[in-house]
Amino acid sequence: MITRNNARLTLEGARAILAAAEAKALEMRIPQNIAIVDEGAHLLAFARMDGAKLSSVEVALTKARSAALRRAPTGPTPSGDPTVMNSLGLALASDDRLTCLRGGLPLVVDGQCVGAVGVSGGPEADDVAVAQAGVEALARFAQ
Amino acid sequence: MITRNNARLTLEGARAILAAAEAKALEMRIPQNIAIVDEGAHLLAFARMDGAKLSSVEVALTKARSAALRRAPTGPTPSGDPTVMNSLGLALASDDRLTCLRGGLPLVVDGQCVGAVGVSGGPEADDVAVAQAGVEALARFAQ
Amino acid sequence: MITRNNARLTLEGARAILAAAEAKALEMRIPQNIAIVDEGAHLLAFARMDGAKLSSVEVALTKARSAALRRAPTGPTPSGDPTVMNSLGLALASDDRLTCLRGGLPLVVDGQCVGAVGVSGGPEADDVAVAQAGVEALARFAQ
Amino acid sequence: MITRNNARLTLEGARAILAAAEAKALEMRIPQNIAIVDEGAHLLAFARMDGAKLSSVEVALTKARSAALRRAPTGPTPSGDPTVMNSLGLALASDDRLTCLRGGLPLVVDGQCVGAVGVSGGPEADDVAVAQAGVEALARFAQ
Repeated sequence: MITRNNARLTLEGARAILAAAEAKALEMRIPQNIAIVDEGAHLLAFARMDGAKLSSVEVALTKARSAALRRAPTGPTPSGDPTVMNSLGLALASDDRLTCLRGGLPLVVDGQCVGAVGVSGGPEADDVAVAQAGVEALARFAQ
Repeated sequence: MITRNNARLTLEGARAILAAAEAKALEMRIPQNIAIVDEGAHLLAFARMDGAKLSSVEVALTKARSAALRRAPTGPTPSGDPTVMNSLGLALASDDRLTCLRGGLPLVVDGQCVGAVGVSGGPEADDVAVAQAGVEALARFAQ
Repeated sequence: MITRNNARLTLEGARAILAAAEAKALEMRIPQNIAIVDEGAHLLAFARMDGAKLSSVEVALTKARSAALRRAPTGPTPSGDPTVMNSLGLALASDDRLTCLRGGLPLVVDGQCVGAVGVSGGPEADDVAVAQAGVEALARFAQ
Repeated sequence: MITRNNARLTLEGARAILAAAEAKALEMRIPQNIAIVDEGAHLLAFARMDGAKLSSVEVALTKARSAALRRAPTGPTPSGDPTVMNSLGLALASDDRLTCLRGGLPLVVDGQCVGAVGVSGGPEADDVAVAQAGVEALARFAQ
């Protein structure tokens, strides 16, 4: 077997995820930066909502890329002693491709990672809630 | 005089421009990467159309930033002797903030630069045509 | 709504802020690096006082940019668990656009961020005091 | 002999040079970015005139640093075959510390380089004229 199939996220799919995340952010009244990347961590779609912090443009991109590359939610590493050093060490060793900040979630269809969503602009818990709304939209569309 | 006013592009405005550029690319049957930045060259909205080259993600961002920062279309510098050295010298001296590639156009409202659109994915002339469709959409909305 | 208005800092305004910050540093007898950026984090004016540490040139620039991009004073993030990891994680995820060091303050006119001042050269508390003198000068001029 | 003396540019000196360059730019009606660095290429003073291109902030800094490091005016290398390749090759090999763009001039007192001025915002010849006004101001003050 020379190749294997992998579902790819379309721009239409990325936008459905973006729209759901944006609706959640509006409902929470926190303007956000939202990035959608594909399974290779390459940017597909992005939106900076009016009033969102400029500083979060890059952070949202980093969270999305990190979640796609690790195929896992961003955040502190669960292991490592101590965790702080391990988490920051991974960011440094990966040339900032990985982040210990929460708010990046992988997008998974039929067990395959097809990309990730990264959100930055509010406290970490709020960023995660907005990213989660994006993940749930994908689940609805993939049914 | 401590401050002066400057119009700022909204996400809604950025999306209207993005949609017009995308429609043009579809019509031309060339999948494109399209980036919209604000007047400070910070990303507002982005779309990579299905089938567009991954390599053009970064190029589209650079074209948009360059057009916003120079408040002028991207491309070879008109002056400088010789032009090749001047154009590439500017890219290097600006730490890649400026590009000599065509396909980045400033977005101007009432004589003020409010941002820029950058397009990459096809031959330069096609990229410019798609960016131009975005500029024209802004002109229609700004009336 | 395609655009919205935003005040912009002039060079004259930036210099009034710089002069006030410098006067404060002279009074405190601590030579400082002082940077003033606009609301898009682009440099407007800079001064390195005689005897100020060379290492602080870049730090002052980073503090100013960070305060402008976040529209908030620089410093450790108030939330995040633990704070150390969150603060350093933000610096890394933003490609060093954000800093957890104190001494960067946003410049606000009529509720709009028009830029920021960043100060580096002394202990953090002294840097903040000098930046604060700049902020107060803006308040006097903006009346 | 363990050490040798070298004159150092003061902030007051840097500002006199900046003011003269700025006056020239106003007279020419071309808003400019003007950077003054010391003999080690570290930033001393900077001004972005109202209306000057944002893209030229970094270019002015690069020109000033390059002129200080080479202790010579910036511009294409006189030798090398071909000149274009040599000039761009130097920029690349120096990690963008050197530039082939004109507009950076060394500041020399009693045969010693004490820093440099870098100007960007107009055509190269205009940038050089503004930098030259700064150099002449230093000559007047140094008498």
